[in-house]
Order: sequence, then C-alpha cells, then structure tokens
Amino acid sequence: MMDVGRVLKGDLRSISRLITLVENNEALDVMKEIHKNAGNAHIVGITGTMGTGKSTIIGKLAKEYRKNGKEVGIIGIDPTSWFSGGAFLGDRVRMQELATDKGIFIRSMGTRGTLGGLTSSIYDVVEILDASGKDVVMVETVGVGQSEIDIAKMADTTVVVTVPGLGDFIQNIKAGITEIADIFVVNKADRLGVEETMMELRSMIEMNNKRKREIPVNETIATTGKGIEELYKEIGRHMKYLIESELLEERRKKRYETELVEIIKKRLLSFIFDESKLKGKIESLIDKISKKEIDPYSAADEILGKVLK
Amino acid sequence: MMDVGRVLKGDLRSISRLITLVENNEALDVMKEIHKNAGNAHIVGITGTMGTGKSTIIGKLAKEYRKNGKEVGIIGIDPTSWFSGGAFLGDRVRMQELATDKGIFIRSMGTRGTLGGLTSSIYDVVEILDASGKDVVMVETVGVGQSEIDIAKMADTTVVVTVPGLGDFIQNIKAGITEIADIFVVNKADRLGVEETMMELRSMIEMNNKRKREIPVNETIATTGKGIEELYKEIGRHMKYLIESELLEERRKKRYETELVEIIKKRLLSFIFDESKLKGKIESLIDKISKKEIDPYSAADEILGKVLK
Repeated sequence: MMDVGRVLKGDLRSISRLITLVENNEALDVMKEIHKNAGNAHIVGITGTMGTGKSTIIGKLAKEYRKNGKEVGIIGIDPTSWFSGGAFLGDRVRMQELATDKGIFIRSMGTRGTLGGLTSSIYDVVEILDASGKDVVMVETVGVGQSEIDIAKMADTTVVVTVPGLGDFIQNIKAGITEIADIFVVNKADRLGVEETMMELRSMIEMNNKRKREIPVNETIATTGKGIEELYKEIGRHMKYLIESELLEERRKKRYETELVEIIKKRLLSFIFDESKLKGKIESLIDKISKKEIDPYSAADEILGKVLK
Repeated sequence: MMDVGRVLKGDLRSISRLITLVENNEALDVMKEIHKNAGNAHIVGITGTMGTGKSTIIGKLAKEYRKNGKEVGIIGIDPTSWFSGGAFLGDRVRMQELATDKGIFIRSMGTRGTLGGLTSSIYDVVEILDASGKDVVMVETVGVGQSEIDIAKMADTTVVVTVPGLGDFIQNIKAGITEIADIFVVNKADRLGVEETMMELRSMIEMNNKRKREIPVNETIATTGKGIEELYKEIGRHMKYLIESELLEERRKKRYETELVEIIKKRLLSFIFDESKLKGKIESLIDKISKKEIDPYSAADEILGKVLK
C-alpha cells in the first residue's frame, strides 16, 4: 500500500516508489489524492536540439533555485532510448552530482511505452513532484518532433535553447517556434557568431510573435554559470506575468485538457487490447487482413462495434 | 470522386491526390480497395541519426532500382517539423532531381498530426504506393525515439545507417538496435575511423543478435555511389531470406497488427473528441479538474462511461 502522506511530505523514497507504480499504470487511486494537492509548483519546460547544453543549464538553474531556498524537481525525457548520441547519458551522469542534495529530485524517463503510455505518465510524474512540495519542476526534452509541442502544453513556462553557429537551424526554423517559446536562450555564448545568432533570433521573434508579450532572448555560458542567474530571474518574471495577466489559469486548463486526452487514450486502448475476450477476435481479424479477406479499416470498425455504445 | 483505377495504374497525379485525401482522413472507402491490391512491394525502412546521409543513400538506391527496371516510392518522414536542423530540408531539395523520373514517387510527411493521426496515414501512404505498382517503397525516418521502432514494425527490411566517428554512438547504443536492424550501413566510409566503427558494430552484433540470421554490415560512400550497388543487392538478399524462411508472412502480420491498432486509436479518439455532444461535457470536466473538484482520472472515467459498452 502506498503512503500518500509521505509523498506529500516530500519523502524522496516514497516519491520514487510512487513514480515507479505510476509508470506501471498502478496506483491510480493515489493519483486522485495527488491531484488534489498539486498546482503549486512552477512547471518549466526546457527544450532544444541535442548538444545545446540543456542539461547543464538545468543543473545550474537547480543550484540557483536551491540558493534561493526552493525545492527542485527535474524530469529528463530521453527520446534517444535506442540511438543515444551519448550526450544524454553523459548529462545524466553529470547531473548525479546534484542528486546528493535532498532538495533536488531527478528522474529520467524513456519514451518507449506500449500503447502510448508514456505521455500520460509524464503528467503524473510532474503532478507527483508538484504535490510533493517542489517549488519548481523542470522538464527537459530534446526538441525533435512532437515532444517540444507536448512540453509546451504541459509547462507554465517554456524555455527554448539554441547555440551560435546553428545558422541553418535559425534560418530553417519554423515560425511556429515563437508560438511555444516563452523564453529563448542562446547558450555557449562565448562561441563565434553569437551576435549574429542573437540578431537572427530577435528578428524572427519580431516577425512571427503574435502574442502580446515580447519573448526575451537570454545569453548563457552554462558551463561557467554565466547568465544563469539572469535566466533564473527571467523564468520568475514569466511566472509573474502569467499570474498578473491571468494567463496562468488558461495555461493550466490547456494542460489538464491534454492530460485528460492522454488518460482517455490510454484507458481506451488498454480497454480494447488488454481485454482477453477481444484478443482472439483481433488475432483472427489480423489473419483475415493478411489474407486480404478484409481491409484494416473494416476490421477496426468490427472491433469498435464491439466496444462502443 | 477518387478514381482508384488510375491510382492502381500508377498515375502520379492520382496517387498524390489520394495521399492528400488520406492525410485529411478522407477517402477511407478507397483505402479498402487499395488494401486489396497492396502487398507486392518490398517495404524498406531506412533509419539513423541526423547527418548520416540517409537521404543521399536513398537517392542513390532509387537510381539503382531504376537501373534494374524497378519502380520506386520514397516516403520521407520529417520529425523536425519545428526545429529543422537544416539537413532534412537540404536533402529534400537534393532529392528533387529524382522527381523528374516518372518511375519514382517522392512524398515528404510531417509528424505533426492531431490525435495521433500521422502514424496511421503513413501506413496508408505505404499501401497506396504499394498498390500503385511500386516495386519498392523506401521509408526514411530520423532515428530518434519511437520512430525507428515504428518503422521496423512497418518495414520488411530495416536498414540502420551510422557513420564513423560517432564512437560514443556505438558505445552507448542500446543492444536493442540489433533487434530491429536487418542491415547495418556505415556511410561516409572514407572518413577516419571506419575500421574501428565496423569492428565495434560487428562485435556489438555478435554479442546481442538473438536471431538466426547474421546482420550484415555494409560500407558506403553515398556521395560517390561507392557501395550502393552492394547495398542494393544486400536488401534484395534480405527479402529472399524472408521469403525462403517464411518470415515474410509473420512480418506482414505484425505490420497489419500495428496498423490495426493505429486505426482503432484514431477512430476511437475522433469518436470521442469530434462528437459535438461530448464537447460540452469535456469542457465542463476540464473546468472541474482545474478547480480540483475532480481529478483527471475520474474525469476520464466519466467520459469513457458515456461511450463504452
């Protein structure tokens, strides 16, 4: 039996245990309790392509939060579960130096999950850390594909990290990025071409930003810590802006909507594919598809006819 | 009204039109007809991290297939719809030189899709090209995250591309890659470190391969065309192996199973979220979640109770 009380008090071992349960689709009743106690943490999404130094930035930000007496949760979403470029693993190792601080909780999650199980467990993990009393929960994703859009739906504040010298990156970047970025960071700002990158970013923002608030562009050299304090303040200012403009509630509703969709998806699929009485039916339909006796669409309709009202 | 006959005869404009319909979730009746006529093409998945030269390899392979009198379909799946690293776009442009050959059909697809719509349309597009008389359909994905696993479920033959000098890549690569790769390619084989990379790959394969067939490792320099003819033959040999070992039917069943799951997923979600009568219910539940009057799990159950038998 899971002791929710210990999780809410921030006991690291209990948090870990609950996350493992949740990842295995257990402990749903506990999550109801967790939900009631969540909503106080600042959820910060940090995204960008590989090699931009996101993990280093997160590590340094975590120290900044700690210096200000705040508790920190860090979730690293590792989409490179098969083809790791190495950087991610290295970053994980580097982060372990933070792991000795009891005010910091770090969890790395893979993106492999049957039946799309992952996304909804990310929501759960964020809520668990939130309810456990963390003041900020930073979620790191590699900005490839759908992940940065998903992260933007989940986060209060989305930080997009780039580096100088990815000239093509900025030229080819879709204008859409300004729709999800609340703060841009140009990391490795001691590299050649930083002024150019800053200029390009700013003009892109100017051209494409449809929102009222101007998107700030911060320079950092995460390895030395330069610019981190300012970034920390910038993230705080964004939260202040969300509260004052009453956009926070709107964002959170968006998050709950996405979460609800994910849970429904997961439940529906497990309803269909875990039902033993449907298994035989599905197998025989696949056999028929394979023999061209039925097409996949008609087969899907047959199964849906059995489960939908 | 869609003319299926013209698609089956390989008319490029009709194929294009049907793909667009399918991407918009229309023309499902036509897909039933398409399915009956599919199953003759060799589906080849080509995956690997960015910058390994996959598109160049595919371009050169396409020419090799044409030289042998075969018709070619190419589907590029672009997961970098937001953060394009540039390479992908460049490759697309380079591929256009192939586009003047009427025996080659090229289509690029993004990964953004509401309600997980993309994956199932990839299946449809593969089937359309298959039914239209293409002898081979090559599907290119960037090997990050779930995509290469999905591609392996769809393809008859999965080719995994790497380059020398990604030493970390190979050291950190998960053994699981040997479960999806049918053929490894070390491209840019004129680069320093190619022998080392080949050796590392071979020893990794030896350690982890649980299958009967040894996974071949091919060297290519795609820009000059070196090794492409041999790779072309290797891909052909793999298909021959699948047929002789009777594994082809098994693989195809796996593909249909995954496709069926994707269609069911898409249909279920559109059943719930496109139903106007449920919209108000969902909105009011999100409101309640936001006010902590209900948790997301109970809300999901309420909605499911309305649709499931």
